[in-house]
Amino acid sequence: MPTRYHRFAGSSLDRLAALSDGVFAVAMTLLVLDLKVPSAAESEHDLLHALLHQVAPRLLPYAMSFLTLGIFWVGQQTQLESFTRSTRALTWIHLSFLLAVTVMPFSTALLAEHTTFRLSMAVYWLNLFGLGLVLFVSLRYADRARLIREETTEDMRAALKRRIVVYQVLYALAALTCVVNTYLALGLLVALQLNSVIAPQVGILDRA
Amino acid sequence: MPTRYHRFAGSSLDRLAALSDGVFAVAMTLLVLDLKVPSAAESEHDLLHALLHQVAPRLLPYAMSFLTLGIFWVGQQTQLESFTRSTRALTWIHLSFLLAVTVMPFSTALLAEHTTFRLSMAVYWLNLFGLGLVLFVSLRYADRARLIREETTEDMRAALKRRIVVYQVLYALAALTCVVNTYLALGLLVALQLNSVIAPQVGILDRA
Amino acid sequence: MPTRYHRFAGSSLDRLAALSDGVFAVAMTLLVLDLKVPSAAESEHDLLHALLHQVAPRLLPYAMSFLTLGIFWVGQQTQLESFTRSTRALTWIHLSFLLAVTVMPFSTALLAEHTTFRLSMAVYWLNLFGLGLVLFVSLRYADRARLIREETTEDMRAALKRRIVVYQVLYALAALTCVVNTYLALGLLVALQLNSVIAPQVGILDRA
Amino acid sequence: MPTRYHRFAGSSLDRLAALSDGVFAVAMTLLVLDLKVPSAAESEHDLLHALLHQVAPRLLPYAMSFLTLGIFWVGQQTQLESFTRSTRALTWIHLSFLLAVTVMPFSTALLAEHTTFRLSMAVYWLNLFGLGLVLFVSLRYADRARLIREETTEDMRAALKRRIVVYQVLYALAALTCVVNTYLALGLLVALQLNSVIAPQVGILDRA
Repeated sequence: MPTRYHRFAGSSLDRLAALSDGVFAVAMTLLVLDLKVPSAAESEHDLLHALLHQVAPRLLPYAMSFLTLGIFWVGQQTQLESFTRSTRALTWIHLSFLLAVTVMPFSTALLAEHTTFRLSMAVYWLNLFGLGLVLFVSLRYADRARLIREETTEDMRAALKRRIVVYQVLYALAALTCVVNTYLALGLLVALQLNSVIAPQVGILDRA
Repeated sequence: MPTRYHRFAGSSLDRLAALSDGVFAVAMTLLVLDLKVPSAAESEHDLLHALLHQVAPRLLPYAMSFLTLGIFWVGQQTQLESFTRSTRALTWIHLSFLLAVTVMPFSTALLAEHTTFRLSMAVYWLNLFGLGLVLFVSLRYADRARLIREETTEDMRAALKRRIVVYQVLYALAALTCVVNTYLALGLLVALQLNSVIAPQVGILDRA
Repeated sequence: MPTRYHRFAGSSLDRLAALSDGVFAVAMTLLVLDLKVPSAAESEHDLLHALLHQVAPRLLPYAMSFLTLGIFWVGQQTQLESFTRSTRALTWIHLSFLLAVTVMPFSTALLAEHTTFRLSMAVYWLNLFGLGLVLFVSLRYADRARLIREETTEDMRAALKRRIVVYQVLYALAALTCVVNTYLALGLLVALQLNSVIAPQVGILDRA
Repeated sequence: MPTRYHRFAGSSLDRLAALSDGVFAVAMTLLVLDLKVPSAAESEHDLLHALLHQVAPRLLPYAMSFLTLGIFWVGQQTQLESFTRSTRALTWIHLSFLLAVTVMPFSTALLAEHTTFRLSMAVYWLNLFGLGLVLFVSLRYADRARLIREETTEDMRAALKRRIVVYQVLYALAALTCVVNTYLALGLLVALQLNSVIAPQVGILDRA
């Protein structure tokens, strides 16, 4: 019986990390392409007006997405660092993750263009959910396939999983408030992302 | 007689891998630029309508191309991992491969814009064929120039080559069904790519 | 008490460097997208006219931004090389730095499109200030958190900080001359960046 | 006297290589953005017509620029591999090289849009000349600053320099034929690039 391709394909963690860094770098920089320079302005006052009304409203979704990409980049990096090696299945789990990363500039532009519509928030949340789901699947798979370093204790594995679940529940709750008002949902999401980055030592989030 | 440039130029596998990761990362992220955010929408219903009619039909070609790029990225990585070093000729074979990768966003956009035309499918298939052909040439060249690691047994080399040939034959057959209907061809190609990723253990494909 | 995620997340300097190289590479190449090829030209003379009047005026802001990105890339690289490891906080400081890098193509396009307006210069300067500020914060944090290699003496640390402060003061003074004339401010900034690159051995800048 | 920044800044060859790979990857992939998908086509015949008349003429400049970027990527890689370390000056020489790389998509688009104008060819040649000039300066500087590995013999250094000079003379002669006809110049340049890649063992070019 001939040797099968899948036995030895896709086992380099280094190249997976390199591809991921590339995709994140391009996605982060493409976000800003959505910020268009106002073309016609006859006076300083005109330009200020255009910057405040055309550019400024897009800054919030843009900054939130940059934060989001940063958070998930750190999350993925932390996982990859804890793996001993890759397998073909793990590679494809992370390629799905990168697919969700490449969609982020689209979801962000949709939210920036149609902030008042709940549908935009739903699409954005779906994107966020996809990112978290794939990272959770990756962790679970790696755990069962015994790809995680021994230094990563049971406690640390649990911490990684718990963090994903807690944040996904909070994302869903925040996004749901768009039933009341989409700006409220947007504000709550930004607050969650800032909390994730700054990581205060108090409250329920401390345990996440 | 003076030393010739070609004796020592282009022998770094690491930089070839880094350039490849960069080109794949940019090509994968550029695919999504083809997904335009609907600009005018007066109600949630309008936006939903625009997303379903303008964005959704493009998702299938887009997802298929992401799958395709992922498959060929894994394929190229597997090859590069099995080489001991590069030569100038091997470098140029892989630069041709990257040329075919950069054309993928164009072929995808053509297929997404003109899905009902057989010509779009022909161009897309040609792109797919180019990717496979160059990887096959790379493998054959590396085999003859004795650039493949000893750990990669005859069986594994045969498996790598067989996989390319089997899939290329199947791609060609799938693309040919566009004579009947281009959506049938598109569906078959997506099925093939999904099969390549999920790799079930049955049927003729098991041996590939 | 469960192990907290923040204890072990985000500690790879290599991936931080790789992401940074990716973001800088994309931002540097995106700058040139602002240089549009003149579309209609009926004679060589028409084309020359279009190149001189539409493309040439954009070359100065474009070249200045490339210089700026180069300077800050060298600056960040020098810092990262002097660190022993990363922490989650340091990672986020550098992600903020990369956020300022991704905004550079926007600030440059704004300055190229509206060179005569002081507001454009103010936005550009703010971008420049952000880059310097974050690098300064990074150095201060790393110093206190004892992340700097022992080979990096007190003198070298002071040299790194002094350089940032001296140049930021000069940037601010140069940008302020836009009250008189924006082209004067632009010229002074270019002169400062060229000085930073060429690094002559004379005057007050020698000590920076 | 305080320690000066320039003594220790910018000495990592690895990050210089990583940034270069990123810039080349983005520039190579951006070239293809110039290939626009024909938007309106009512029949297969219409689409074929549009592909042949709008897309096909752009393929030649596009492919030539991909070849050119590949050639200079191999050239730069060969140099960097032969250096023992970098200095701040060498880093800036290579940043100038990358500046010339980022301009390539613009020069290519100009040549594709206005192929019949000698001015486009002049701009393209200037870009090509800039790439060669900076690589030559890099080699000369590294030689004098004793940054080249001992394994790289005098013969090899001479071969590297000779190759740049011979090709630059041939590029200039080819570009000059645009006085007769720009398509002739374009054809000769493509022939030269193909020769550089395929590297036949005959004639004067054998010694380059």
